[in-house]
Amino acid sequence: MVKVAVLGATGYTALELLKILLRHPEVEIVAVTSRQDGSPPISSVHPSLVGRLDLALEDLSPEEVGKRADCVFGCLPHCASAEILPRVLAAGAKVVDFSADYRLDDAATYLEWYGHEHPDAARLGNTVYGLPELFREQIRGARLVANPGCYSTSAILPLAPLLRAGLIERDDIIVDSKSGVSGAGRQPKLMTHFPECNESMSAYNVGRHRHTPEIEQVIGRFAGTAPMVIFTPQLAPMDRGILSTIYAKPKGTLTEAAVMACLREAYAGERFVRVVDHLPGTKDTVDTNFCDVTARIVRGRVLLISCLDNLVKGASGAAVQNFNCLHGFPESTGML
Amino acid sequence: MVKVAVLGATGYTALELLKILLRHPEVEIVAVTSRQDGSPPISSVHPSLVGRLDLALEDLSPEEVGKRADCVFGCLPHCASAEILPRVLAAGAKVVDFSADYRLDDAATYLEWYGHEHPDAARLGNTVYGLPELFREQIRGARLVANPGCYSTSAILPLAPLLRAGLIERDDIIVDSKSGVSGAGRQPKLMTHFPECNESMSAYNVGRHRHTPEIEQVIGRFAGTAPMVIFTPQLAPMDRGILSTIYAKPKGTLTEAAVMACLREAYAGERFVRVVDHLPGTKDTVDTNFCDVTARIVRGRVLLISCLDNLVKGASGAAVQNFNCLHGFPESTGML
Amino acid sequence: MVKVAVLGATGYTALELLKILLRHPEVEIVAVTSRQDGSPPISSVHPSLVGRLDLALEDLSPEEVGKRADCVFGCLPHCASAEILPRVLAAGAKVVDFSADYRLDDAATYLEWYGHEHPDAARLGNTVYGLPELFREQIRGARLVANPGCYSTSAILPLAPLLRAGLIERDDIIVDSKSGVSGAGRQPKLMTHFPECNESMSAYNVGRHRHTPEIEQVIGRFAGTAPMVIFTPQLAPMDRGILSTIYAKPKGTLTEAAVMACLREAYAGERFVRVVDHLPGTKDTVDTNFCDVTARIVRGRVLLISCLDNLVKGASGAAVQNFNCLHGFPESTGML
Amino acid sequence: MVKVAVLGATGYTALELLKILLRHPEVEIVAVTSRQDGSPPISSVHPSLVGRLDLALEDLSPEEVGKRADCVFGCLPHCASAEILPRVLAAGAKVVDFSADYRLDDAATYLEWYGHEHPDAARLGNTVYGLPELFREQIRGARLVANPGCYSTSAILPLAPLLRAGLIERDDIIVDSKSGVSGAGRQPKLMTHFPECNESMSAYNVGRHRHTPEIEQVIGRFAGTAPMVIFTPQLAPMDRGILSTIYAKPKGTLTEAAVMACLREAYAGERFVRVVDHLPGTKDTVDTNFCDVTARIVRGRVLLISCLDNLVKGASGAAVQNFNCLHGFPESTGML
Repeated sequence: MVKVAVLGATGYTALELLKILLRHPEVEIVAVTSRQDGSPPISSVHPSLVGRLDLALEDLSPEEVGKRADCVFGCLPHCASAEILPRVLAAGAKVVDFSADYRLDDAATYLEWYGHEHPDAARLGNTVYGLPELFREQIRGARLVANPGCYSTSAILPLAPLLRAGLIERDDIIVDSKSGVSGAGRQPKLMTHFPECNESMSAYNVGRHRHTPEIEQVIGRFAGTAPMVIFTPQLAPMDRGILSTIYAKPKGTLTEAAVMACLREAYAGERFVRVVDHLPGTKDTVDTNFCDVTARIVRGRVLLISCLDNLVKGASGAAVQNFNCLHGFPESTGML
Repeated sequence: MVKVAVLGATGYTALELLKILLRHPEVEIVAVTSRQDGSPPISSVHPSLVGRLDLALEDLSPEEVGKRADCVFGCLPHCASAEILPRVLAAGAKVVDFSADYRLDDAATYLEWYGHEHPDAARLGNTVYGLPELFREQIRGARLVANPGCYSTSAILPLAPLLRAGLIERDDIIVDSKSGVSGAGRQPKLMTHFPECNESMSAYNVGRHRHTPEIEQVIGRFAGTAPMVIFTPQLAPMDRGILSTIYAKPKGTLTEAAVMACLREAYAGERFVRVVDHLPGTKDTVDTNFCDVTARIVRGRVLLISCLDNLVKGASGAAVQNFNCLHGFPESTGML
Repeated sequence: MVKVAVLGATGYTALELLKILLRHPEVEIVAVTSRQDGSPPISSVHPSLVGRLDLALEDLSPEEVGKRADCVFGCLPHCASAEILPRVLAAGAKVVDFSADYRLDDAATYLEWYGHEHPDAARLGNTVYGLPELFREQIRGARLVANPGCYSTSAILPLAPLLRAGLIERDDIIVDSKSGVSGAGRQPKLMTHFPECNESMSAYNVGRHRHTPEIEQVIGRFAGTAPMVIFTPQLAPMDRGILSTIYAKPKGTLTEAAVMACLREAYAGERFVRVVDHLPGTKDTVDTNFCDVTARIVRGRVLLISCLDNLVKGASGAAVQNFNCLHGFPESTGML
Repeated sequence: MVKVAVLGATGYTALELLKILLRHPEVEIVAVTSRQDGSPPISSVHPSLVGRLDLALEDLSPEEVGKRADCVFGCLPHCASAEILPRVLAAGAKVVDFSADYRLDDAATYLEWYGHEHPDAARLGNTVYGLPELFREQIRGARLVANPGCYSTSAILPLAPLLRAGLIERDDIIVDSKSGVSGAGRQPKLMTHFPECNESMSAYNVGRHRHTPEIEQVIGRFAGTAPMVIFTPQLAPMDRGILSTIYAKPKGTLTEAAVMACLREAYAGERFVRVVDHLPGTKDTVDTNFCDVTARIVRGRVLLISCLDNLVKGASGAAVQNFNCLHGFPESTGML
């Protein structure tokens, strides 16, 4: 049994993570942390866990967590994450970080998009990006994994194979994404107050969402040179799910069959990427670690459509997949 | 044209009220107030009002509001309302109060349920309860009207005629109500955070919701002696609408036809109460000032089912109906 | 490995069942049936099963199904179920029946509520009602189990212990239930067309819902004599979940503590009934086999509130729990 | 008073139309038609109309309708519409047609996209497209108006001014649209069955939605030559509202200010197009005839975002706006 801990266990990704871990045959949950006073039972914060997880939320030091657990999942806000996780690593644990802190390769881009000096800049460029479908080998040997952003995964999985195969232009990519509200976290705000966002669709952070440089960086590894992505995040009135509709310009003439073949070949052995002929809906993937992908050619342009559950393949499922990689378990352990 | 003002114009009932008033042919909106700094345009708070209402949110004194307007709608929190509205009345305006402050008849009950000494106790017992279907004559001569609670209206309208006719027992009444989330106001809280309340039904404030004494007091006028009501409010994942399912014990034997006849007779001339044969859904009444009511006999018990829009017949539509009464306009002016 | 088959695999309960069975370590799914031509892959009907279950929907005879499988789950409409399942039983398989056909004890009540002569009346009165929390011993020895109705479970679980303990009257019970739309099945109808039922709450089948006699029969076993239940089903705009608010009259004086103690004692060793102090919401139980229950005393009346997922504890989870009983596995196998 | 009739009055656009017409001071509704037997009251099909519209659904001949009414709103399916409306016109009435039959200019395109020979091809090319903001003068003199498609209006309003001003390329336009489910009509289907589409986002009819040639034709009048549009319709889990996110390539360098200035100038005097600085949500326009539009420049590309209510500005509100044009009333009559 691998002993695991969850840092910052009061949010939605932590809850989803705990639900997956409770079904994982090789895991023992040894600590869940939060800054709340009085060590309340975690089920008082997440009532769905009553009778399923009998742990108190503890306010532990990073060192204590790193000693108690073999592997630590960090569900902390960006910046805070890179301040605390080095101490967890130093105490001996492996780490899967849900925050954006270790996703980008250089501190300047981090500063530009996150508005903070990076607290642990030396690790940038040396930390593996946790998409096992693309970076499995590096993840296996790592001690720290940067778990991808939810939108990022929905964009990178369909784009990477086409860029690697040189089928599409790297500088004319539009990612139009629609996300369920849980992606915005558990902190109540006006934008996510039920009567505001229910029965409404709206775009937000147009041109300045932080997953933009992340997508560009990762697909850049497959494109040769730096690509340019226009990314539009939009809020849909549902709990979970991301639908990304991606528009790319083919290099030369390209058939639907060729695009589909490229995707199928890329993900032939992958358990969690389903290349499908039909137009998938987010509901097909909800509560699963699957990302469904299809392609169409419309008036000469390549359309890629991807669906995933932002809390599973977009966060906690991906984290457990990374955990399984780190510890040598079959990647789907606990998730089928 | 009657000059009107809205005190506390940033919430949902105020927005709904403004939308109705904009269609009212006899109304000029002269002021909308809020404590915000800098007098922002009201459309910055309510973007649906862009191009429809070109007023700034002003931080005005009650006296100024009472002088500028002929009639003032108070959308303030309870307690604050009874502190401010006396000054508005003293300045000469008529007032329709959305808060609960003037609904109860005595200060002791107010203290018990609201936890505050009433700031203007002398007006309790002398203020008319603003349900025109039941208290039209008193409203016409009033200067201050206590606009009813949303749940209260959905319970009182079906119950009052049956109690008046002596058809049901007064001490065995259960009101099981389901409300849309807008009833909880516009202040973001965890309970009304989208991913918490979407796709969920739950009861809240069981046995201690403040509409309980209000319902009991008003139906008590028709029951002879004080009735006892078990009232259970429940949150449904929708913006608007209240469905109340009411269980009452008949005095002696009672047929469905007799109950329906009693309801039909009571509301024969009423524009906004529709006694219907089918089982109504809240959607039939959304965005309207209608309350739909029907009745069934199930295993000897009387079932009353009522539907209304909590923001219209449950709040702002009722307020305009009261306004129309106060000013001698046909009650449906601006609302059909 | 136990070989299982699902009869009528195109609906929501069958889909939910398959998802649970796919995680069950002791199960091999050997057949899924439907009357559709051409044996399409089941994933063409349930796209969420792509890559998870590689079976064709076959139009098999009951005998063939009964031979191929050790245990058969019947997801057929009532009446059809009692025509087909006897042939499955005769072929040697055990059966868990999702339909209502074997829930009632006598053919007259079946005829009255379902409008059909029962095709297999001899088995009525001899078939076990599949609520393991109440009838575990009989289930263990059975070959045919009648899986309970979703509303019924939400009503019976809180009521049975109080009736058994003689704490409440048996003839003054009101069950006010709110259900997600998946409870109405997968056949498109106007009532469940999205723009009709979204953003709306409504009652349906008032006084004549078929779970009424089922609830009365089962709690009658604990009440001594036949109880009388007023049951009101209501449709809430959500996929899943039932919230039942139950009003009962205490025998003599009764404290909240006494009611809670009775519930806690009844379900002390039960994995899937959680007696909680807080007011539970349906979301706490969604995608789980839990039924959450709490109690309050309001103005002398007992209020019981229960929540469950109509597709899991209200259908497919309960079926797997019964399956586990039938085959001697721990009841929670595959469901935590 | 203008006498109006509604052909095919059982769907959602007809209901919305009737609600608007009931508030219109210059309108008398004289007939509502449907092929149903027995002339049921319209409120039996639309329960929200109980007590508001006391008319029977009649199965009238086109000639009878055309004689009885001064203006007829056709809410019939395509193809049927062009078979029936010529007879209504011949009987003397003016017509606003909600169907797609008179939107396209030539019969060949109609055949290609609708799969039918056009029954009244002579009127194609001579019928005005009912977007008053762009074609007001022709509408005023018309007897037949083709009411625009809902998606089309959301795309044409932001694109037309920029194409007319030569600010964007005509052959690189992507329209990514998200619509509420009422846009799919009132006929129950699996795709619009609540548990299928609730909590899900999905694309449909990719590359072959019939609003594509309509958008291209109309914006082509402003672009000089035929433009090419990639149009992706997507279903969002909400009743109403369209959010269109449009990506266009600027001719040369273009600032956000220049794009906004172009939009503001184009719609300076328009009551129902609001050019706003903030990112609008569909909820800002729900139940109104407004279309909200804004623009951004993202990485050199022009982003246009538009919102409207598909049943109002996308259908019935637009129809009344056209009606007001036809009859010389102020365009906003009945709609503010």
